Amino acid sequence: MANAVENIIKTIYENYLPMEGAGKVADYIPPLAKVSPHKYAISVCTVEGEKFNIGDYTEKFSIQSISKVLTFSLLAPLVGEELWQSVGKEPSGSPFNSLVQLEYEKGIPRNPFINAGALVITDKLLEKVPNLNERLLLYVRELAGSADIDFNKEVADSEYATGERNKALAHLMKSFGNFNGKVSHVFRTYCNHCSIEMNTAQLAQSFLFLANGGINPLNGERVVSTRDTKRINALMLTCGLYDESGDFAYKVGMPGKSGVGGGIVAVIPGRLSIAVWSPELNRYGNSTRGIATLADFTTELGISVF
Amino acid sequence: MANAVENIIKTIYENYLPMEGAGKVADYIPPLAKVSPHKYAISVCTVEGEKFNIGDYTEKFSIQSISKVLTFSLLAPLVGEELWQSVGKEPSGSPFNSLVQLEYEKGIPRNPFINAGALVITDKLLEKVPNLNERLLLYVRELAGSADIDFNKEVADSEYATGERNKALAHLMKSFGNFNGKVSHVFRTYCNHCSIEMNTAQLAQSFLFLANGGINPLNGERVVSTRDTKRINALMLTCGLYDESGDFAYKVGMPGKSGVGGGIVAVIPGRLSIAVWSPELNRYGNSTRGIATLADFTTELGISVF
Amino acid sequence: MANAVENIIKTIYENYLPMEGAGKVADYIPPLAKVSPHKYAISVCTVEGEKFNIGDYTEKFSIQSISKVLTFSLLAPLVGEELWQSVGKEPSGSPFNSLVQLEYEKGIPRNPFINAGALVITDKLLEKVPNLNERLLLYVRELAGSADIDFNKEVADSEYATGERNKALAHLMKSFGNFNGKVSHVFRTYCNHCSIEMNTAQLAQSFLFLANGGINPLNGERVVSTRDTKRINALMLTCGLYDESGDFAYKVGMPGKSGVGGGIVAVIPGRLSIAVWSPELNRYGNSTRGIATLADFTTELGISVF
Amino acid sequence: MANAVENIIKTIYENYLPMEGAGKVADYIPPLAKVSPHKYAISVCTVEGEKFNIGDYTEKFSIQSISKVLTFSLLAPLVGEELWQSVGKEPSGSPFNSLVQLEYEKGIPRNPFINAGALVITDKLLEKVPNLNERLLLYVRELAGSADIDFNKEVADSEYATGERNKALAHLMKSFGNFNGKVSHVFRTYCNHCSIEMNTAQLAQSFLFLANGGINPLNGERVVSTRDTKRINALMLTCGLYDESGDFAYKVGMPGKSGVGGGIVAVIPGRLSIAVWSPELNRYGNSTRGIATLADFTTELGISVF
Repeated sequence: MANAVENIIKTIYENYLPMEGAGKVADYIPPLAKVSPHKYAISVCTVEGEKFNIGDYTEKFSIQSISKVLTFSLLAPLVGEELWQSVGKEPSGSPFNSLVQLEYEKGIPRNPFINAGALVITDKLLEKVPNLNERLLLYVRELAGSADIDFNKEVADSEYATGERNKALAHLMKSFGNFNGKVSHVFRTYCNHCSIEMNTAQLAQSFLFLANGGINPLNGERVVSTRDTKRINALMLTCGLYDESGDFAYKVGMPGKSGVGGGIVAVIPGRLSIAVWSPELNRYGNSTRGIATLADFTTELGISVF
Repeated sequence: MANAVENIIKTIYENYLPMEGAGKVADYIPPLAKVSPHKYAISVCTVEGEKFNIGDYTEKFSIQSISKVLTFSLLAPLVGEELWQSVGKEPSGSPFNSLVQLEYEKGIPRNPFINAGALVITDKLLEKVPNLNERLLLYVRELAGSADIDFNKEVADSEYATGERNKALAHLMKSFGNFNGKVSHVFRTYCNHCSIEMNTAQLAQSFLFLANGGINPLNGERVVSTRDTKRINALMLTCGLYDESGDFAYKVGMPGKSGVGGGIVAVIPGRLSIAVWSPELNRYGNSTRGIATLADFTTELGISVF
Repeated sequence: MANAVENIIKTIYENYLPMEGAGKVADYIPPLAKVSPHKYAISVCTVEGEKFNIGDYTEKFSIQSISKVLTFSLLAPLVGEELWQSVGKEPSGSPFNSLVQLEYEKGIPRNPFINAGALVITDKLLEKVPNLNERLLLYVRELAGSADIDFNKEVADSEYATGERNKALAHLMKSFGNFNGKVSHVFRTYCNHCSIEMNTAQLAQSFLFLANGGINPLNGERVVSTRDTKRINALMLTCGLYDESGDFAYKVGMPGKSGVGGGIVAVIPGRLSIAVWSPELNRYGNSTRGIATLADFTTELGISVF
Repeated sequence: MANAVENIIKTIYENYLPMEGAGKVADYIPPLAKVSPHKYAISVCTVEGEKFNIGDYTEKFSIQSISKVLTFSLLAPLVGEELWQSVGKEPSGSPFNSLVQLEYEKGIPRNPFINAGALVITDKLLEKVPNLNERLLLYVRELAGSADIDFNKEVADSEYATGERNKALAHLMKSFGNFNGKVSHVFRTYCNHCSIEMNTAQLAQSFLFLANGGINPLNGERVVSTRDTKRINALMLTCGLYDESGDFAYKVGMPGKSGVGGGIVAVIPGRLSIAVWSPELNRYGNSTRGIATLADFTTELGISVF
């Protein structure tokens, strides 16, 4: 498969490199707004240990909502089935930050990959994990096999300062008894996690355990159980791309997660992980070129879940 | 794989046969309420032509919402991408018959497998297909390889007489300009389609084309394009089990579709289709024993999308 | 007061006669769209029997939603407090035909003056009153002291043909068990009632009983109880002008009811009734010139509820 | 009228004194939960300067949401019509603290007497009035003609500590750009205002300006304009009793405002103000005995808006 993958990503990269103006760089906080729209990188890691990179794959970007999968994976082994009384497992079926559904469902977010759900995950992590910020960084560095991964304080500060809707979500959940910590502390921590910066090579590597039955191929250590690996992949397939998840499932056919920094990471269970970065977003908040890249990738490779 | 499948379904069947009181038989219309809760059948068809059946697999039941996949498949080749201006491709994220979302989204149903979406599909079929009821029966009979498939007039009558919420959905869509036919006519046709009766052997066979790249293995004829096959499977995975689709994706990991008659049908692309029937439903309207059966099936077989 | 009233309406009429382009004539059905936007009429009736008219007061127009007060008044003496289990008494607080609230509140409309509520009233009237259409016409003619009042079949037909949202409301209520009749029959009857045509002189006279403690001043007969008179006036004040009721309460300070035909009728309890007609509507569906007229009327007269 | 009023409140008081168990004392914060359910007081002030008191009228209670009218009155003369771009004038038509409507209407609360609306008023007051807390106390003391009025720190602290839903409302409005201050500061100030304690004699006196065309009868000074007096009374009539405003309008027919401390205050424009206190609340959060008292009062007095 190695040659095939290499050729495919090279062709796709060259094909889409001229693509421009296919969306709008996120501008709700200044540090994201100043990223060049021209950036484009693809990285693939296979469970056999092969790596393929092309484009701006050494340049780091803000992973944003992609961090939700990592924090959930960190929490999963520390909690039991009772977690699912605090957060659902179903697609959200509406814009990713709507309060209506949260109120209708008594403060229980639909799934851990929408903002409200990730806030609940952070709340629970803070109860279980001492020095959470440091712990998460170590966790991600180990998954990525790279010590050069950190938070971006400017991004986190900016996110915190403007995150009124997320604070509203947290207070609403607290009013329903589904939130234990202090909102400002939990949300600040959540902003740190969203501000993690990686390049596509690091990102693809850090998600490879989800293509590998829950085991980090770099050190052979189990990250999450087989059961939770399947669960996370199912959640990514049904909820990973905001209100475009259904379309992504069909077009791409891989479990994946996007962030407003323009990154998308996806896996083919048993095979590989792939990360793409291109900052221009479509109206759903997903990277336009990223989706095109991944759609072509599974089409050319002839592998898809469906 | 043949022996494996045979042994697995035999073991599962014996294991769950004593299961009772695990839910509630649908009782919103009298003809469904009188079905025995003890019925239990499993049928598997492989793309290689093998068939495995156990239990009440010769007894027919009301396929109900499972018909939504068949009517969508009948329509798909007759329309182009413009269809997606009238119906979405995203999970619904709320009880399967809520009007709130439909109003919020200006009369465009989230996907073709919720009631509102299937009504739009029926509306469009009536415009494209002369003698639709006869045509659909022929279509299903050909897929199932059996002439012994028909509507149940008593069920259709009862559904029509009590379907106030569905009529509300249709009129609401019409008020938004997303419905062309006469509501009573379209809804009556929709009720006919839901009233189709099959046994699990017929049902598994009739869905095998979705595991076979869109081609009916019985006659080698293309039913839907490869593209639409992937689309239908993606839709089933993300939207096929009402508000339990996310959980089903994780536990079972197969694209599938359920009906309130207690049937569930699912496929493993490239491999097989499987139909289960057991009328007791959980609180989401899905067969309790059916889900348990399918979860064990993929676990034992060691094959899943994730 | 007689001279004062006469002078005031004359001054207001002359002041606002040149007002044009202050809104948009209702155009959702053709018969309403063809009405001249220039029409303008004011009529006042006092409980002492005085009458003042100016402008196009001999020309009839479609009273539309104003009929909701008349049908409710016809029903009130025929039912007891149990009516309030089927319809609420509270302002609706959202656009007048939203289904969201109706679903949230289990098919119980907020009040009898929104479309859903009036459909429930019509449903109940059909159960209680034989030959309802004829009876209502007689009732209105007696209140207005004029035999020259009738339905407009063209308007009713057009309303019926396009009233998809109203049919959706009715079916939704029926799905919740809050609707007994056949939707098509009840809605057709409702359309007849909305299509009643009167001129402002007839309209002001027909509402005078609400300024007179529930007694028709023309014949001394009780129309509704004192209790129901207060109830109807309270409902008009809090719910009579769609989503502009609060603003109308402050600016005008009279219980009143509007229709999309451009009519508004209002009362000062113990004193008088006043009807205005001017077809250009503001964004809430209320007559722009009608509201201006009534605001000036109470300001000049120095009488208001507040 | 003096003797009439005196006799009427005496009769009502004796009639309802034995009433018990007619509701539930507010218990969402401890300081309110410990108030005796047996308390009962009525006070009336006429514009001519007469005063009538009966029962526990010297005992102070938490006025809670009644303070919303006082803070609005303090703000009204300081702002122009631009205020109505930040807060509506229409009834809310749903439970008094729902976020759904606030999200649907882009962060603009329906009116100043629901929690979200009052938070906007406090936000604006803090921008306009230096030393707001002190200023408000002076304002209320002057209206009440009593220096013995203060905040209750324990109540304010408790309200602040548990007010998650109110914080969610504030952050949501801030996310829509309809909130300028720091949420914690504005909400803390709001809690102070809600914690004001008065007895019924003080409360009735402090609202008398709304029955007196906006002028404080104690010193002849104008408090709000005639225009704003009418506006406040209209708002109280349509929105003053949460989701029971419509029923109160009909049964009582006076503009009024309730609080969960069990107080209700109401006015008859041109005549009098009346305050009642009885802590047992009905399911809408209004004093059960308070409403019964006021309904009998207007019935016996024969004066009502309708």
